[in-house]
Amino acid sequence: MPLKILIANRGEIALRILRAAHELNMETVAVYSMADQDALHVKLADEAYCIGENFSKDSYLNMENIISAAVLSEANLIHPGYGFLSENPLFRRLLRACSIGFIGPSEETMEAMGDKARAKELAKNAGVPVVPGSDGEVNSYEEAIPVAREIGYPILVKASSGGGGKGIRIVEKEEDLKGAFSGAKNEAKANFGEDGVYLEKYLRNPRHIEFQILRDQHGNTVHLGERDCSLQRRKQKVLEESPSPSLSQSLREKMGASAVALAEASDYLGAGTIEFLLDDHGNYYFMEMNTRIQVEHPVTEMVTGVDLIKEQIRIAMGEKLSFDKEDIRFQGHAIECRINAEDPLNGFAPSPGNIDFLHFPSGKDIRVDSGCYTGSKILPYYDAMVAKIIVHGRNREEAILKMRSALYELTIQGIKTNQLYQEEILSHDSFLSGAYHTLTLDQLRG
Amino acid sequence: MPLKILIANRGEIALRILRAAHELNMETVAVYSMADQDALHVKLADEAYCIGENFSKDSYLNMENIISAAVLSEANLIHPGYGFLSENPLFRRLLRACSIGFIGPSEETMEAMGDKARAKELAKNAGVPVVPGSDGEVNSYEEAIPVAREIGYPILVKASSGGGGKGIRIVEKEEDLKGAFSGAKNEAKANFGEDGVYLEKYLRNPRHIEFQILRDQHGNTVHLGERDCSLQRRKQKVLEESPSPSLSQSLREKMGASAVALAEASDYLGAGTIEFLLDDHGNYYFMEMNTRIQVEHPVTEMVTGVDLIKEQIRIAMGEKLSFDKEDIRFQGHAIECRINAEDPLNGFAPSPGNIDFLHFPSGKDIRVDSGCYTGSKILPYYDAMVAKIIVHGRNREEAILKMRSALYELTIQGIKTNQLYQEEILSHDSFLSGAYHTLTLDQLRG
Repeated sequence: MPLKILIANRGEIALRILRAAHELNMETVAVYSMADQDALHVKLADEAYCIGENFSKDSYLNMENIISAAVLSEANLIHPGYGFLSENPLFRRLLRACSIGFIGPSEETMEAMGDKARAKELAKNAGVPVVPGSDGEVNSYEEAIPVAREIGYPILVKASSGGGGKGIRIVEKEEDLKGAFSGAKNEAKANFGEDGVYLEKYLRNPRHIEFQILRDQHGNTVHLGERDCSLQRRKQKVLEESPSPSLSQSLREKMGASAVALAEASDYLGAGTIEFLLDDHGNYYFMEMNTRIQVEHPVTEMVTGVDLIKEQIRIAMGEKLSFDKEDIRFQGHAIECRINAEDPLNGFAPSPGNIDFLHFPSGKDIRVDSGCYTGSKILPYYDAMVAKIIVHGRNREEAILKMRSALYELTIQGIKTNQLYQEEILSHDSFLSGAYHTLTLDQLRG
Repeated sequence: MPLKILIANRGEIALRILRAAHELNMETVAVYSMADQDALHVKLADEAYCIGENFSKDSYLNMENIISAAVLSEANLIHPGYGFLSENPLFRRLLRACSIGFIGPSEETMEAMGDKARAKELAKNAGVPVVPGSDGEVNSYEEAIPVAREIGYPILVKASSGGGGKGIRIVEKEEDLKGAFSGAKNEAKANFGEDGVYLEKYLRNPRHIEFQILRDQHGNTVHLGERDCSLQRRKQKVLEESPSPSLSQSLREKMGASAVALAEASDYLGAGTIEFLLDDHGNYYFMEMNTRIQVEHPVTEMVTGVDLIKEQIRIAMGEKLSFDKEDIRFQGHAIECRINAEDPLNGFAPSPGNIDFLHFPSGKDIRVDSGCYTGSKILPYYDAMVAKIIVHGRNREEAILKMRSALYELTIQGIKTNQLYQEEILSHDSFLSGAYHTLTLDQLRG
């Protein structure tokens, strides 16, 4: 049984992993950039190694330095958290060459899921519905015309290597296809260095519903229900909840079975998330799989009681899931609000700086995951998340009241945050009714 | 439905009640002493009234000023928390005269339970085992001799009005009875103004096991399991857990039934605690009933999921319990550690002062109830509790590991605390084995 775990991340997720490791009686190694020398994860780990300058590319993305820290500290397991190197097959491969364990799936699974066309193919073969579209990449505008007709407009032209809204075009009618096709290709080339594109049915007002799965080396696969992550601002998740107000029990079971089928078909290992789009008619389509822990994983932990990080660690050590599928209980309702250092009155511009005073809500069924403290800094080099507030209620109404009370109590001085924006969302009709979709927030505010 | 609740308390319990009220969509009124003007409960309440000078007798025990604040603010309900006026029948009576609701039982129940002899009589009549002893007070030494013989030595001579270890004597053999009898009487007279005493069987190494009960105006009575509060330093609880490592399921059911029987026999209303002593042979005896919420109530909330403060409020408003007896589930294991501003290396002397820096543990299944923040003060006028750390695990072992990790993370600068003392307890054989009793801690350290 490995005894020492290196956490190749920073901020709240580094703390989250550190706590789980301590609770499993493991030793912990932190790594940090120069700018992060006073960070909580550095203070609370048993050992800590500086891995480079402030920018991520010099530190948290610096594979050589992280691996050096692992070798020096004799860590036998690395948890990559989310972001940074968490979905990088090369990092995974280098670790394997160094005989250092990695908490996540194999490099092959990462590569397959990292390639959208391959992932879609895998899903299709596993009997999981995918958004109607071209079979892989479409090489020319001429080739695209009949494919688009068969799918039916509106369609999307999407870069295979895309992400973050780049290299993507909505096409409402055939006469716009030519311009959109070359536009998407050029943008993809400029942003990602590759210009392969494919076509896909465009879904209006879809919900983003994702299923949490866990799979161990003994072939046990479970899903732990869904998270509704439709409340997004410019494709960034803002508020997540479970269960989704848009799912019936029968739909939940169907989608859960699809998620499990895909996890098995991809020979997945560890914790992963299968993201679906859901339309107004209860049709759901596989979108992508994230082969890592998600920011919003506490929502699932609140509803199921399962400790996802501990299960990840156990799975990486070759152990079985610590519970049986039959024992999974979905209890009550959980909501997470992401509190970011940003200025809603100034286009949500990042608002880094000193946190002069910090008071987090606490109490029954309230959880705050954060790497911040009174006197700490939100640094301009990394993402601007200050805290995740997660609450649990016996039902959705109770959870909403609890989150409102928690946000009322939350006190952050010295930087601007989206706290009031979150409070607005919690009082908005489209949230209260549950009838929201991925464009709701963008339609509320430009 | 009343909409405004006045919280006649301070510190963490004032915050706890405030949160519950907000989550029930009620308005909140705080009261505070001069010294508490920067307290969190003052900042977070909708309204706040100063009720007097620093000492409790001038403020939190000042009935007239508190009632004036209630009248001024038009509060229709008062939550007394614990301590202060929470078990004062006169306060209850005055509120009734002013048509202000009180969250707790009737003054008659308070009076009956506040008188140890009457409470014991009530228990006996309800078929609840009581510690063998005299029928009420014993007027003279001569009268005491045959009673003590019948009970069997060792016995206790206890003041009817006693508390906090005052007015109490252990008598091992008859020749010591005379001195102990007059000693207890004199101490009682000096400390409480009354010198009535009674005799009781002395139990060696007993456990302190208490049952949480709830009873509504519609006659629904439930118990929510036990808390083991045997880890006490000089009769002050230090660490509490549920379930108790000393109880079998059949004993739990018997004791729970006794608790329910007593709650019904006393026509109890609201949340209350029935305290039992448990000996090595599985015999249990009613000790006393606390007619208020307890410091350690979160332990029960962690294990059952029930929000005791919300149930208290609902019951006071005439509503039924919000759940059915059949729906109560006892899940996993919870532990609470009380973190006090005191110096274990100096006889646990109070250590009031400025909190220069404060970082609380957080994360999955960790709860911290506290009224403190970075920059706040531990005041010399009130009790010295800084925080309650409460954790939940799937079993006792997991809960202990989680508490250790939480205490490792807890950071309090500027004052001395019992944090290391709690860490010692968590590593001690008698705690780990579960074979501890009410004298264990005092035997560890003078």
